[in-house]
Amino acid sequence: MERPRHQGMTKNTSMRWRLPLVCLLWELAMIVLFGVFVRFSPEADAHWEEEKRKMNLTSDIENDFYFRYPSFQDVHVMIFVGFGFLMTFLKRYGFGAVGFNFLLAAFGIQWALLMQGWFHSFKNGKILIGVENLINADFCVGSVCIAFGAILGKTSPIQLLVLTLFQVTLFSVNEYILLNLLHVKDAGGSMTIHTFGAYFGLTVTRILYRPNLEQSKDKQGSVYHSDLFAMIGTLYLWMYWPSFNSAVSDHGDAQHRAAINTYCSLAACVLTTMAFSSVLQKKGKLDMVHIQNATLAGGVAVGTSAEMMLTPYGSLIVGFISGIVSTVGYVYLTPFLESRLHIQDTCGIHNLHAMPGLIGGIVGAITAAAATEDVYGKEGFIKAFDFTSVYQTRTPAVQGGFQAAGIMVSLLMAFVGGALVGAILKLPVWGDAAAENCFEDDVYWEV
Amino acid sequence: MERPRHQGMTKNTSMRWRLPLVCLLWELAMIVLFGVFVRFSPEADAHWEEEKRKMNLTSDIENDFYFRYPSFQDVHVMIFVGFGFLMTFLKRYGFGAVGFNFLLAAFGIQWALLMQGWFHSFKNGKILIGVENLINADFCVGSVCIAFGAILGKTSPIQLLVLTLFQVTLFSVNEYILLNLLHVKDAGGSMTIHTFGAYFGLTVTRILYRPNLEQSKDKQGSVYHSDLFAMIGTLYLWMYWPSFNSAVSDHGDAQHRAAINTYCSLAACVLTTMAFSSVLQKKGKLDMVHIQNATLAGGVAVGTSAEMMLTPYGSLIVGFISGIVSTVGYVYLTPFLESRLHIQDTCGIHNLHAMPGLIGGIVGAITAAAATEDVYGKEGFIKAFDFTSVYQTRTPAVQGGFQAAGIMVSLLMAFVGGALVGAILKLPVWGDAAAENCFEDDVYWEV
Amino acid sequence: MERPRHQGMTKNTSMRWRLPLVCLLWELAMIVLFGVFVRFSPEADAHWEEEKRKMNLTSDIENDFYFRYPSFQDVHVMIFVGFGFLMTFLKRYGFGAVGFNFLLAAFGIQWALLMQGWFHSFKNGKILIGVENLINADFCVGSVCIAFGAILGKTSPIQLLVLTLFQVTLFSVNEYILLNLLHVKDAGGSMTIHTFGAYFGLTVTRILYRPNLEQSKDKQGSVYHSDLFAMIGTLYLWMYWPSFNSAVSDHGDAQHRAAINTYCSLAACVLTTMAFSSVLQKKGKLDMVHIQNATLAGGVAVGTSAEMMLTPYGSLIVGFISGIVSTVGYVYLTPFLESRLHIQDTCGIHNLHAMPGLIGGIVGAITAAAATEDVYGKEGFIKAFDFTSVYQTRTPAVQGGFQAAGIMVSLLMAFVGGALVGAILKLPVWGDAAAENCFEDDVYWEV
Repeated sequence: MERPRHQGMTKNTSMRWRLPLVCLLWELAMIVLFGVFVRFSPEADAHWEEEKRKMNLTSDIENDFYFRYPSFQDVHVMIFVGFGFLMTFLKRYGFGAVGFNFLLAAFGIQWALLMQGWFHSFKNGKILIGVENLINADFCVGSVCIAFGAILGKTSPIQLLVLTLFQVTLFSVNEYILLNLLHVKDAGGSMTIHTFGAYFGLTVTRILYRPNLEQSKDKQGSVYHSDLFAMIGTLYLWMYWPSFNSAVSDHGDAQHRAAINTYCSLAACVLTTMAFSSVLQKKGKLDMVHIQNATLAGGVAVGTSAEMMLTPYGSLIVGFISGIVSTVGYVYLTPFLESRLHIQDTCGIHNLHAMPGLIGGIVGAITAAAATEDVYGKEGFIKAFDFTSVYQTRTPAVQGGFQAAGIMVSLLMAFVGGALVGAILKLPVWGDAAAENCFEDDVYWEV
Repeated sequence: MERPRHQGMTKNTSMRWRLPLVCLLWELAMIVLFGVFVRFSPEADAHWEEEKRKMNLTSDIENDFYFRYPSFQDVHVMIFVGFGFLMTFLKRYGFGAVGFNFLLAAFGIQWALLMQGWFHSFKNGKILIGVENLINADFCVGSVCIAFGAILGKTSPIQLLVLTLFQVTLFSVNEYILLNLLHVKDAGGSMTIHTFGAYFGLTVTRILYRPNLEQSKDKQGSVYHSDLFAMIGTLYLWMYWPSFNSAVSDHGDAQHRAAINTYCSLAACVLTTMAFSSVLQKKGKLDMVHIQNATLAGGVAVGTSAEMMLTPYGSLIVGFISGIVSTVGYVYLTPFLESRLHIQDTCGIHNLHAMPGLIGGIVGAITAAAATEDVYGKEGFIKAFDFTSVYQTRTPAVQGGFQAAGIMVSLLMAFVGGALVGAILKLPVWGDAAAENCFEDDVYWEV
Repeated sequence: MERPRHQGMTKNTSMRWRLPLVCLLWELAMIVLFGVFVRFSPEADAHWEEEKRKMNLTSDIENDFYFRYPSFQDVHVMIFVGFGFLMTFLKRYGFGAVGFNFLLAAFGIQWALLMQGWFHSFKNGKILIGVENLINADFCVGSVCIAFGAILGKTSPIQLLVLTLFQVTLFSVNEYILLNLLHVKDAGGSMTIHTFGAYFGLTVTRILYRPNLEQSKDKQGSVYHSDLFAMIGTLYLWMYWPSFNSAVSDHGDAQHRAAINTYCSLAACVLTTMAFSSVLQKKGKLDMVHIQNATLAGGVAVGTSAEMMLTPYGSLIVGFISGIVSTVGYVYLTPFLESRLHIQDTCGIHNLHAMPGLIGGIVGAITAAAATEDVYGKEGFIKAFDFTSVYQTRTPAVQGGFQAAGIMVSLLMAFVGGALVGAILKLPVWGDAAAENCFEDDVYWEV
């Protein structure tokens, strides 16, 4: 035991100058860029009284804040407590899970406000931000939290910050292509957040492949209480997912519908996860890894279609299937990916985000292609897919095709982007730990 | 130690085929039934634009979603994190507490959407669901979570699913009798959720009486950190209870008032719980069992009356009393029920839900009987008790009588239903553990 | 080890009669006072229908409940889970942290409803309460939770109740002076909650100085899982702080803006906290104490100015600075305060609340002084600072001066009040533990 630990010490994992430098310089850059670019949207600006008259609003309650703030807070909890605690399942990496997630998300939301702002909220040289921007920034960072799950325990905090910088940038470009150029609907982010985030993270972890990782195998497990901490993360993700999928949908029926569809899909998903967790184990015992993760696949898999007229039973079907796919993935696919493809996926994001994300993209394409004026109503049809101005003549079938194209673009961005960023992270300057010290808090934390 | 464990193994607790079969078949049944029956309510349907005109609504903010969604999310947290973590106090049953609660609630909300839908939201052959249905489904499942508390650690997951199937059904019938036939008010569910759920669970645990349960006595205690996990459950129940009691009240003042009354009652309850927890212990030390549970009795006990003009000081009085009753129950009544009446009540739901539920029903009856036009205003009086159409001539005194009848009906349903369901659960086919393996996760979980 | 424990036992820490008596009598007093004084505000009263017509409101959604209830629930979580779990970091004081916080807050909110009610909501001999009063009561108690952090582990529950009684009273007087007499803006409470609460607590702990506290030094540390429990507290405070700072701001743009500013400040603060936590440790490892606490300084430091036109980049700057100040404080100032000034500050509230609170007050004064009609708009300017009636002619510069005076008054109240209350708590009748039994749950809890 002593030897490998000594070998590990030959790697310099001290963060003393590198981490502070990156944190401070990047934060200073944020201040400068915010100073030049970021201002309040009219609904958050003190000129609101005049704006209200201009917009013919009769009450303060019609401020977008009241439509979206409760959902924003739920999403915020999902990013920081949900993802943070979900990853505390490792017996000796709880500080890293919740602490590094905190660090990367806090940086990521700032950079996302800028990147997404330039693409979507840029007006007269300024980015005007309101509550919807905060939600979208959290969403964007969600894709980084997903990728973090693949490399959990194997990277230094600086690597995570570098990852965040690049991934937020690529996310924003991909999102712009999908939402603006392809005019694709993806309110809950099956494609932009989950498919992109997961395949990006899987590509990165493939590039960072560590042949000797079995040296820290004993630390890759959980202990009783770390599994309970992880369940806090699971439940907050599960409970608030209806808010996630409805947070940026159109006011009114779309938000309402997205919440209901997500609620239904998630409920079904729990049942099939339990069923397959039990049946795939020799003695029929349930595995906490499945309960912690696969129960969430139903939320991922209705991410694109939740705001559409998927209907409650359609949602149940999607949840039913994705719970099975995800659980089977944990049992058979994860070991295969590791041994054959050298993809070391600490949290199994391939099962929780990648495959359900693909399902979500496909279900979204089908649901869009199947839309009719009869089901949506004449006005509802145009509003739901925003078939206005240049898109006035787009048909549901064509929309379905563009949705499918959105999946392909997201995959392409993930693979190419992940390979590039993986290569950068492979440089020997970032202070990552040796294989035998992975999954161990005391490399970067006072314990 | 070896012997009893071997005896235990003579019971076949393997879930390998039974649990998956039940989960998958029942979920398939849900899909079929949802496919036939469940559609979106007008406020969640894409035809909403047309509906809005029909209803003369000028803004999307008047969609019921914005009145109730924040409360829905709070209730959702109470059901899954609140009840789930409250029951993690057992040293070796944390997975079962939070995991089985997750399973039964995920199934229960689907079945509740159907059952309650047939009774309350059925229109032209379809159940039309919106956010209020989601809340009510969560409420219904809340009564199952309560009953689960009585049998915690002693039943297999299949038994819990069977229990859920029947209890949701009976709950819905009872709720229909109370709300529709007796025209009783019970927004926070003192009668329908707590009294019914608790006495139902107590009857079930009586039928399932295990004479040799002292064999697992060492596992019935808590450890330091399991008590802290349980406090997460306690606090989320306590903090969000104002949302619970106001979630389905009328828009406006009723929701507002229900939140305030519940806030007050719960605050008072904490003080009397602490007082009696200390005074009833020889050395005056506080007992975490009381703090975890009896502090919540104040929320239960204003469940019926919170939306009425109970007034803040009335709420304090109710909280004051219920904290005392509940704590005294933990100290004296629970041991008595176990030794004399053979009611083994793992979580002490008799003290947290049954007695405070009865208090809540009675306080509701008195508050209704004492209502006057002076206190409520002419319009407020009619609106608060829905004294319209056939109920136009009902007087407060008569309403009080019907409220009292509601308590009786709930008790009757609980005893009869609990006896029947208990008898079903006693069949030797469900894979429950032997007495010496109760309160032990590794029977059903990979640990 | 045996000796000191025996010495400790010479102090009578039994709560058996003292605690119950205080709890019951004080709660009875609350009931009487609520009975005499507290009624529902028009928006929570059943007369609301008539009121609505009087106020020309067309929809129930314009009830203040829907503007503030989601924020209220977030604040509620901060007080009970946020502060409660933040203090569970001690290895053997988790019950005391979360349990005593629960007790004092439950009493404090009742007394605060009365005290603040007499000052701000008194009409025709009655205190009329609505959701805003609940938020303000939680705020007031927040200042007590802060002070509790300084004396954590060293006081009996009775001392905490006495502290709460006096501190809520003094808080309300100070708040009245600031908001009503000085006409100062302080929506997020940098001055009224944090500066006052922290310096009050620091003064109390100075008066209660225990020279032999190193006898329980081994218990003043954390263990791995207690640090994770504390992170639950940290994250809920961090995530919901935007709700805290916006909860009682004006409807519309002010609430919206306050949330955005706080979100930005907190994000920046995480980066600088991580930077300084790493750079100030020889091996560059991160310290959980800093992550748990200093990351929150950004929320404190924009408490006064968040609802003003601080702008997102202004918020980043404030967060940047306060993260540094707070972390440096933990490393250098806390040991200094203890060794030189005999201020034993268990949780380091000087770093998390006192200094950032002062920064918050100063930033508020500067932001107010720099306000122009150009930045706020003509109407917005008057609305933001409530420059109406007698304050019609107040200029921004003058407002800035009054804001600065508000800091001074808060400090004065804290020092004088803290000294008085500290002296009362020093009386040998309250049952506090001996030095060697501090930071140990089994003095007051069944463990």
